[in-house]
Amino acid sequence: MKVNILKKNSVLNSIVNKFSDFLEKKECLDRNKIYNAIDDGKMVLLYNKNHGVDPILVGQPASIKINANIGTSPFINNIKLELDKIKVAHHYGAHTIMDLSTAGDLDNIRKIILENSPLPIGTVPIYSVAQRYIQKSDSPAKFSINELLEEIEKQAEQGVSFMTLHCGVSKRAVDLAEKENRVLGIVSRGGSILARWIRENKKENPLLVEYDKILKIAIKYNLTLSLGDGMRPGAGIDAGDSAQWEEVITLSELTLKAWEQGVQVMIEGPGHVPLNHIGEQIKVMKRLCHEAPLYVLGPLPTDIAPGYDHIAGAIGGAIAALNGADFLCYLTPAEHLTLPDVNDVREGVIASCIAAHSAEIALGRKIAVDRNINISRARRELNWDEIKKFALDKEMLCFRRKDFEEKEECAMCGDFCAVKMLR
Amino acid sequence: MKVNILKKNSVLNSIVNKFSDFLEKKECLDRNKIYNAIDDGKMVLLYNKNHGVDPILVGQPASIKINANIGTSPFINNIKLELDKIKVAHHYGAHTIMDLSTAGDLDNIRKIILENSPLPIGTVPIYSVAQRYIQKSDSPAKFSINELLEEIEKQAEQGVSFMTLHCGVSKRAVDLAEKENRVLGIVSRGGSILARWIRENKKENPLLVEYDKILKIAIKYNLTLSLGDGMRPGAGIDAGDSAQWEEVITLSELTLKAWEQGVQVMIEGPGHVPLNHIGEQIKVMKRLCHEAPLYVLGPLPTDIAPGYDHIAGAIGGAIAALNGADFLCYLTPAEHLTLPDVNDVREGVIASCIAAHSAEIALGRKIAVDRNINISRARRELNWDEIKKFALDKEMLCFRRKDFEEKEECAMCGDFCAVKMLR
Repeated sequence: MKVNILKKNSVLNSIVNKFSDFLEKKECLDRNKIYNAIDDGKMVLLYNKNHGVDPILVGQPASIKINANIGTSPFINNIKLELDKIKVAHHYGAHTIMDLSTAGDLDNIRKIILENSPLPIGTVPIYSVAQRYIQKSDSPAKFSINELLEEIEKQAEQGVSFMTLHCGVSKRAVDLAEKENRVLGIVSRGGSILARWIRENKKENPLLVEYDKILKIAIKYNLTLSLGDGMRPGAGIDAGDSAQWEEVITLSELTLKAWEQGVQVMIEGPGHVPLNHIGEQIKVMKRLCHEAPLYVLGPLPTDIAPGYDHIAGAIGGAIAALNGADFLCYLTPAEHLTLPDVNDVREGVIASCIAAHSAEIALGRKIAVDRNINISRARRELNWDEIKKFALDKEMLCFRRKDFEEKEECAMCGDFCAVKMLR
Repeated sequence: MKVNILKKNSVLNSIVNKFSDFLEKKECLDRNKIYNAIDDGKMVLLYNKNHGVDPILVGQPASIKINANIGTSPFINNIKLELDKIKVAHHYGAHTIMDLSTAGDLDNIRKIILENSPLPIGTVPIYSVAQRYIQKSDSPAKFSINELLEEIEKQAEQGVSFMTLHCGVSKRAVDLAEKENRVLGIVSRGGSILARWIRENKKENPLLVEYDKILKIAIKYNLTLSLGDGMRPGAGIDAGDSAQWEEVITLSELTLKAWEQGVQVMIEGPGHVPLNHIGEQIKVMKRLCHEAPLYVLGPLPTDIAPGYDHIAGAIGGAIAALNGADFLCYLTPAEHLTLPDVNDVREGVIASCIAAHSAEIALGRKIAVDRNINISRARRELNWDEIKKFALDKEMLCFRRKDFEEKEECAMCGDFCAVKMLR
């Protein structure tokens, strides 16, 4: 299928041309490969000229990317903390930041975040619209589609590069979730607001009804649509039910509609999914959505790890990336419990990097394989400076070795060092 | 193939009979299933009557077990710290402890550890023999096989339940490792000592030559042999080479020899292995070694994560367990860098529990599936006491929620709680 996104999207076309040297070098990919993948919709270029930071490529065969969620919450509202999180996320290797703020002056918070972030920013615009109602204890289902469209355009104008829009939370999907008697119903915040809107207004999801209007805004700003997984399973036992797949089928249709207009699209994926189902879910989603880039949250192969969901997420993320997921949304140790602090952000980004790097080695991607060999060569020489160079977290390595840094061996083995034993 | 271990091993037979009620209840498995699996060698019962703590079953279809390594090192030698690690490992869900001490009075340390551990103890007896030479800066290759056999018997007499013995580090395997030009040669401490012994003495591995004598000691104490993976890859790029498989073939032969004498055997597995090779390696090893229980270290799907190898290990461990591994040796954040502290032990055990639980859900094991559903039901009710009951780390959960414990929602979502949105 010829999609020809670049022919239809002149803003994107000029960005791709402008950054082709940069992207070629960054991804170690020939510019024609990049051009063709974007043109086919298999890769998206996250870039809003009103933000103006370096663009990021997401999709095959670019390297796997990592997103870090930040943002205020009703209980913890401190913009300084959020800016510190951006710094840490960037330092440890995140490629994008999503501002999921739900408390405070959201327009101003977003403005400050855009001013301070060296990475492209994503948002979930329905949060801002819902906040107006939730903060006066009113039903967020009272918002109108025009309010939401205005919010989307305002944020795009501000410089947001990609937005999660839960267009696939259809009336049918919500009905199916109810019929399936899910243990955990709808756990997506945006999805639950839209489900409530559908129920209270007895109408179809306005984001689905007015999808064409969203596309018109998107093309103007080269806004990438991240078609949200509002029906994602929130418990392993709910994974793979009819409500989940109904939404994916809708996203499949919406992908083609966006491509017809030259709009870039990513698909968001689950959620809580048992280990033996992750690979198949990813493959089915990629096929259903015409190989559009897949952006996953987790998946989490167990539900019993609050406090350590970055580890559970790394297991799921590695398997997802091996099977075709392109973009990993980090989970931090705070997931399911509280807002992450700066330390949680580091742990979350590193865990995602481990998942991504593990998958990239398995996929035979040269940059990843070379780095893996280089650190192992350095280990053979017990050359700690070189080990540091290729390790994910140099600071942690120095911290761990600080009492023994003059020693050649590590402090686990000492004289029993296997490497020295055979010299 | 009828193995009939229980007919040949009267010590084991009487232990199985004595503990059959306990084991049936603990594993939620019919006693005949347990009896048959042990009799066939597919399951081992870790128990030494001279230690006398509750026995642990390892192998299909028992639940996946977790081992925590502790022990002094030449740079950090503090028995009090090691006892604290045992407590923490036990509290967070480890099933066995391996004492890998290499510094101090090893006999006495082992005695204290056995006195204080509520879990079966494993050891690597070659460390004690090698220590005598290493601490006087002599070559550890000078030990005699009788010294090593005496050490094995002494430790079995002390109460050790299982021992790593690198019987498969044959001359041929060592030669192959050299020919393969491995990036990281031999990284197993026991394996490297034996390779040096073979090289310096120009003789075959004494543990292989005198294997029958080891079996005689093992049968006397119901000592389970954990046939070590001395040739395990220490770098992803070395995984799956001829040296590695040569050792597994030898272990396959040694498994049958042990079973002929009624001795229980586990097989140890890799190591550093790329994500796409873990499943196949585990399946090939299980088949080659006649479905004897498989005890894995990691596997680590990336080499660039020092400081976070518990996360890399959880990824590999989950996939290994899904494909048939029975026993996960934990990795802590200290791996490759230093001796773990108490906090590292907690992180390591929890990461292994996440891997094991993820695999057990995928394998449809009832206890794991039920726990997963129960925590999700508690989440639907926002019932934090119930969530705590089923979570891996109750203390962490309380700590994370302490500033907001009076709130019904978590501090990430607050009023935006998806669960409340649809009530």
